[in-house]
Amino acid sequence: MQDFSFYNPTRIEFGAGKIAQLQQLVPSNARVLILFGGESAMHNGTLDEVTAALGNREVQLFGGIEPNPSFETLMQAVKVVKEQHIEFLLAVGGGSVIDGTKFVAAAALYKGDAWDILLQGGENISAALPFGTVLTLPATGSEMNKGAVITRKSLQTKLPFSNERLYPQFSILDPIKTYTLPPKQVANGVVDAFVHVMEQYLTYPAQAPVQDRFAEGLLQTLIEIGPKTLAEPQDYQTRASLMWTATLALNGLIGAGVPQDWATHMLGHELTALYNLDHAQTLAIILPEMLRQRKTTKLDKLVQYAERVWGINQGSDDDKAEAAIERTREFFESLGIKTRLSDYRLGSAHIEAVIHNLQRNDMTALGEHGDVTPAVCRQVLKASL
Amino acid sequence: MQDFSFYNPTRIEFGAGKIAQLQQLVPSNARVLILFGGESAMHNGTLDEVTAALGNREVQLFGGIEPNPSFETLMQAVKVVKEQHIEFLLAVGGGSVIDGTKFVAAAALYKGDAWDILLQGGENISAALPFGTVLTLPATGSEMNKGAVITRKSLQTKLPFSNERLYPQFSILDPIKTYTLPPKQVANGVVDAFVHVMEQYLTYPAQAPVQDRFAEGLLQTLIEIGPKTLAEPQDYQTRASLMWTATLALNGLIGAGVPQDWATHMLGHELTALYNLDHAQTLAIILPEMLRQRKTTKLDKLVQYAERVWGINQGSDDDKAEAAIERTREFFESLGIKTRLSDYRLGSAHIEAVIHNLQRNDMTALGEHGDVTPAVCRQVLKASL
Repeated sequence: MQDFSFYNPTRIEFGAGKIAQLQQLVPSNARVLILFGGESAMHNGTLDEVTAALGNREVQLFGGIEPNPSFETLMQAVKVVKEQHIEFLLAVGGGSVIDGTKFVAAAALYKGDAWDILLQGGENISAALPFGTVLTLPATGSEMNKGAVITRKSLQTKLPFSNERLYPQFSILDPIKTYTLPPKQVANGVVDAFVHVMEQYLTYPAQAPVQDRFAEGLLQTLIEIGPKTLAEPQDYQTRASLMWTATLALNGLIGAGVPQDWATHMLGHELTALYNLDHAQTLAIILPEMLRQRKTTKLDKLVQYAERVWGINQGSDDDKAEAAIERTREFFESLGIKTRLSDYRLGSAHIEAVIHNLQRNDMTALGEHGDVTPAVCRQVLKASL
Repeated sequence: MQDFSFYNPTRIEFGAGKIAQLQQLVPSNARVLILFGGESAMHNGTLDEVTAALGNREVQLFGGIEPNPSFETLMQAVKVVKEQHIEFLLAVGGGSVIDGTKFVAAAALYKGDAWDILLQGGENISAALPFGTVLTLPATGSEMNKGAVITRKSLQTKLPFSNERLYPQFSILDPIKTYTLPPKQVANGVVDAFVHVMEQYLTYPAQAPVQDRFAEGLLQTLIEIGPKTLAEPQDYQTRASLMWTATLALNGLIGAGVPQDWATHMLGHELTALYNLDHAQTLAIILPEMLRQRKTTKLDKLVQYAERVWGINQGSDDDKAEAAIERTREFFESLGIKTRLSDYRLGSAHIEAVIHNLQRNDMTALGEHGDVTPAVCRQVLKASL
């Protein structure tokens, strides 16, 4: 096990009807800005339930935060926060809304050009507005971590940042609020959570047996409940397990004390920024070939993954690794998420722009060994055609 | 999954040499009281290292906190805190010192008779001094939870209490600090952590697959590393895994959203209060027969435990349950912890006093179904002779 620091003060309120607890969780008399995405939050009644729970607090709404939330949109929210003297932010939505709210929380108190927050990965955040979340889409884990990813459309750039001041004060997880999600978003969420675990697990052995078993437990659970959630969208218990699993996939716990990869994510961010693919689609495309291209350095963990997660016990180590990679791809496909660039009408002509942007964003030494160069990324993309 | 609230703001600093971070973790200029147990903390250099890291802060020492920390001793520490206007407590030791420090933190600010804190289970705590811990003995999980257990010798009573104000602000876990522990304390720690997991896992199925797999991962890890820690006391990685496993066994995570038992603990507390057995010894005695006496209501989880943790796949469900219970007992014995009352010179004549105290302390409807009556406890104790 490597040395680590672990700190996660987000309060989780999990269960049906927990939105009513906003009454106690949000400071009374606070001027609140509710941030949300599209119109679904209005139509499915969640926003009404939230505003009712907030009682007679002064509440303003800011809708229209898009998937892959943009700097451009969020700076409008920052303007509202400043003009209206907002004291507390409440994100109602999925990872995009929560990530966006984290940016607004930091940017509203930042002296200087708020884009610098992205350029410095959040290290320059010295204060943030307090905020909480009502999660409606299990996927990113943003509801219980300190990180976020923001896109600047004008620059075709998508960058992550994080800071301890960006933990939500609380997150409300009501599985019933996820019943009406479109199947594609559910599938995306399963893939996103799965790859979050893989980025923290599929590296090299670090004598961290508990972290390994926790990661394997999350993967096994996603494999079990992913298809079931799609087949039985109103099964409360399956929804509940998916929601809690996605949160635990990226709340810092399974990554504490172990090497981490994240090359698949960084490469995926460039695909989204350039070609507007869903985040989970980019992960489903890249992960299988990213694992195959780096099979030698990842072999020990690939074999462990094959045996423990997929029950593959036949053949050589290489056979096991290959079989596990293919099972991973098949799992994504079984959820309805295509795993080839060509499935999204992208071809070899689209590769060099991705490599160019990786270089521009200093993403030139990715992965747990820092050996995932642009040349390796090019190979991964070619193999993913 | 059941509804739950999860909140755990304790910061963990894990690794060799992390004690130096006290310099940043403890408020500068705070008047600090260091609480510790016996002389080992002085002799092995840990106290020197701690005081050096605290620099020029005003520091006082309070030693002599005993295993199963007593109300009587701790009230002396409360007196010191008040007289010396202490502002920050630092526990240096294992679960007893940390539990004791939690009591001191609450009692120092409590208006009224501090014993009421125990009688009301901590619900009446409205403020507590801030505190941190330097853990030297992996076992109880107290370094990352809000609970504690205190003994009042004069009443032969051992009672638990908990409150959200009792989370340590931070805990420093340096595996090297555990190298010099006596083997008996290491074995006790493994048993304690194991039974903590069992109290939250071995109940009835609650459609909580992640919690189950996390619990099973902790149990499997303890089975692997328990003997290895005893055989190779200076193996850093094994020590590190034991330390983190014991913390995760009782930090609220695996118990979130699932039914919990704790009958073995409550019965064990009475054995310690009356006959001064080590806490872990009482658990090793009681758990196997507690599981056997309640085999019918626990059968589903006993079979799952047998299959997943012990790899027992032969025979009827009853066979599997029986085999798993015996493997559990053998595991405790293999660590050098005896599992029969008679091993500790206790016989049938000692049983009724335990039952009497259970009744006096209102421990008359224990377990996940509330059906562990004093009569059931009597059966468990008789079977444990």
